[in-house]
Amino acid sequence: MELLNQLGKNALAAKYELQKLTTDEKNHALCKAADVLVQESSFLLQENAKDIAKGEEKGMHSGLLDRLRLTEERIKGMAEGLLQVAKLPDPVGQVIETIERPNGLKIEKRRVPMGVIGMIYESRPNVTADAFGLCFKSGNAVILKGGSDAVCSNIAITKVIRQALKEEGITEDAIQLIETSDRAVTQEFMRLKEYVDLLIPRGGAGLIKSVVENSIIPVIETGTGNCHIYVDELADLNKAIRIIINAKTQRIGVCNACESLVIHEAVKDALLPGLSEALNTYHVEIRGDEKVQQVIDCVPVTEEDYGTEYLDYIVSMKTVASIEEAIAHINKYSTRHSESIITEKKENAEKFLNEVDAACVYANASTRFTDGFEFGFGAEIGISTQKLHARGPMGLKELTSYKYVIRGNGQIRQ
Amino acid sequence: MELLNQLGKNALAAKYELQKLTTDEKNHALCKAADVLVQESSFLLQENAKDIAKGEEKGMHSGLLDRLRLTEERIKGMAEGLLQVAKLPDPVGQVIETIERPNGLKIEKRRVPMGVIGMIYESRPNVTADAFGLCFKSGNAVILKGGSDAVCSNIAITKVIRQALKEEGITEDAIQLIETSDRAVTQEFMRLKEYVDLLIPRGGAGLIKSVVENSIIPVIETGTGNCHIYVDELADLNKAIRIIINAKTQRIGVCNACESLVIHEAVKDALLPGLSEALNTYHVEIRGDEKVQQVIDCVPVTEEDYGTEYLDYIVSMKTVASIEEAIAHINKYSTRHSESIITEKKENAEKFLNEVDAACVYANASTRFTDGFEFGFGAEIGISTQKLHARGPMGLKELTSYKYVIRGNGQIRQ
Repeated sequence: MELLNQLGKNALAAKYELQKLTTDEKNHALCKAADVLVQESSFLLQENAKDIAKGEEKGMHSGLLDRLRLTEERIKGMAEGLLQVAKLPDPVGQVIETIERPNGLKIEKRRVPMGVIGMIYESRPNVTADAFGLCFKSGNAVILKGGSDAVCSNIAITKVIRQALKEEGITEDAIQLIETSDRAVTQEFMRLKEYVDLLIPRGGAGLIKSVVENSIIPVIETGTGNCHIYVDELADLNKAIRIIINAKTQRIGVCNACESLVIHEAVKDALLPGLSEALNTYHVEIRGDEKVQQVIDCVPVTEEDYGTEYLDYIVSMKTVASIEEAIAHINKYSTRHSESIITEKKENAEKFLNEVDAACVYANASTRFTDGFEFGFGAEIGISTQKLHARGPMGLKELTSYKYVIRGNGQIRQ
Repeated sequence: MELLNQLGKNALAAKYELQKLTTDEKNHALCKAADVLVQESSFLLQENAKDIAKGEEKGMHSGLLDRLRLTEERIKGMAEGLLQVAKLPDPVGQVIETIERPNGLKIEKRRVPMGVIGMIYESRPNVTADAFGLCFKSGNAVILKGGSDAVCSNIAITKVIRQALKEEGITEDAIQLIETSDRAVTQEFMRLKEYVDLLIPRGGAGLIKSVVENSIIPVIETGTGNCHIYVDELADLNKAIRIIINAKTQRIGVCNACESLVIHEAVKDALLPGLSEALNTYHVEIRGDEKVQQVIDCVPVTEEDYGTEYLDYIVSMKTVASIEEAIAHINKYSTRHSESIITEKKENAEKFLNEVDAACVYANASTRFTDGFEFGFGAEIGISTQKLHARGPMGLKELTSYKYVIRGNGQIRQ
């Protein structure tokens, strides 16, 4: 496809320029882009209004409209995000390891940009600026394919950032947007392997599944979180309730919210009445197995519930007779995002932390901490739920690869 | 497909057992497997003879027959490989990083096995034992799909290793083989995402391309090497000839052999006659551009040559007017494996090392060093030419992922 090949070629040319930029040059450009975003607020709002009008016309759900909407405040937020990224350490060029071989070869394992990163995401205009900031700081060119409902907003944001880059004397093709909403183009984008080094989908489970199944470019899966909290036989039950309420209700629609509780039979009678009451305060519907139903009023749970990421005021509950059963249940239904055990017994905590297969495993803390900022990375482009390359919150470092730089003085292989 | 689902389920069960093994248990089992392979030599030779007979019957090329053939010596070589892996440090459980957060959360980034690794490879029975050794030591269960011409040999090797594991009280499903040659099964294997965490194809460019295009499991591409040596304006020409002869001829059919030379115009008259003579000694056919043709007798090079991994006694030659042109040419045709510059000028070396986009970039050394043993990794499962997860030679560490282990005392998110 002509359009995509052109974007690919532009990005390829840009990546060689971007990898030569100094940290100062990158930081300066990020600050400039932040400034220009704020200066151009009225243009951005005007373009965003077109998307909003179209969305209202087609009867878009108020939650989606809210995510689509830009305000002065939100534009400032995007700019602030870029300034924050400017302050983070530059991973590019870091020497990860050095090896000196007996034959005198000096091998240096050095962090380098990925090259060209593709992002496919839904109709959230702020992702356009965020993704640019993280990719740019880590020395990568980015090609963006945002949701079609945000197309006017995304075109406007991209235009403003490209303008800022131009004023800095940096290749504008550091950020490019696929402007069409044609699905065939998105499919073709996933096959642009000649130019794109890494594809990151951000959005709901359907979007991510489609990218994983159709892309021939390496993909990092992000975000689907069917997160469990296991309340052990030896848990502090007050701690358990506090953590469960936090993980379930502090923010309902996020991937690190708790969706399912696994409860040791020995504590169900002591835990459930108080927990149920606390959850009721937040209008959380409980779907429990038979043993849960014996203690509290709740909806009977189904097998399907155990595999569901509700992103809603619903929680499933399963009772188990042992920590082994809890671990097996979690390993069966986990999306490998974040899983937590509440226990005062150190051996049980360590067993859980060792044996549960997930990006982030917690003892006695809320799953809501799985987040680039909470981990101290300063920013994140997503939370990886796969095992290749990066797992858990992905910051700048996770947007880089490495190369081996080998210096010799004439060595040949025997 | 019932067969694959069963293998997948077995591997899934095995992975949870394998991640609990201690380093000693793993090493002991590797030594046991090495012993049993040697003890069962006559069985292995007998089964291998069936593959050889079938190969001869269908008129298999002598080079392929040689790769397929087992001998007492080669069986000892496989056993030796397992003993060597037993001696390597165990990457599993290593703490890569620790972070303590202001809220008291203690975050540990810990190396863990991938889980289940799938290998698709050609008819080289030794890969069966090698792949098992590396995957097992790094705590992974492996599902193998070897070339159909080696099926009796692979079944025999797998059987012997499983026997050794059983005697050690370790789950035999640490190694499983897809025994059928049905192509539909291989296609389905690439979609076994529910069970397989990582797929590694090993073989020719066609095999690797097919896996990359059809797999929905994350893939690490290995091995295709269109490797260049650039002889700079300021090269030591004797060093250049020695290195080129080594990289081109020391072993012809390997991925880190040199396939193409890029030569600065300023040195062509001084370099080419001597280089041509040296290459002639090894019967290497030279395919050169017009300026090369003006200096030495050679076959005219085509555009297609520049993109070809010959794996043969052929080398292409391209002249350039500057190091920038050399870098651009290499970045255009490189398969991102190994690229080398010969120069005495430090700035030029650094420019090349910085700007060439490949897993391994060399100054003044042969590309033949791109190898797990030569890098000091002790072993390798392949050489990654992609940027995700691992680049260059992949040892035990590259067969692991990591998880974040977070210990708290009741922390909830504000």
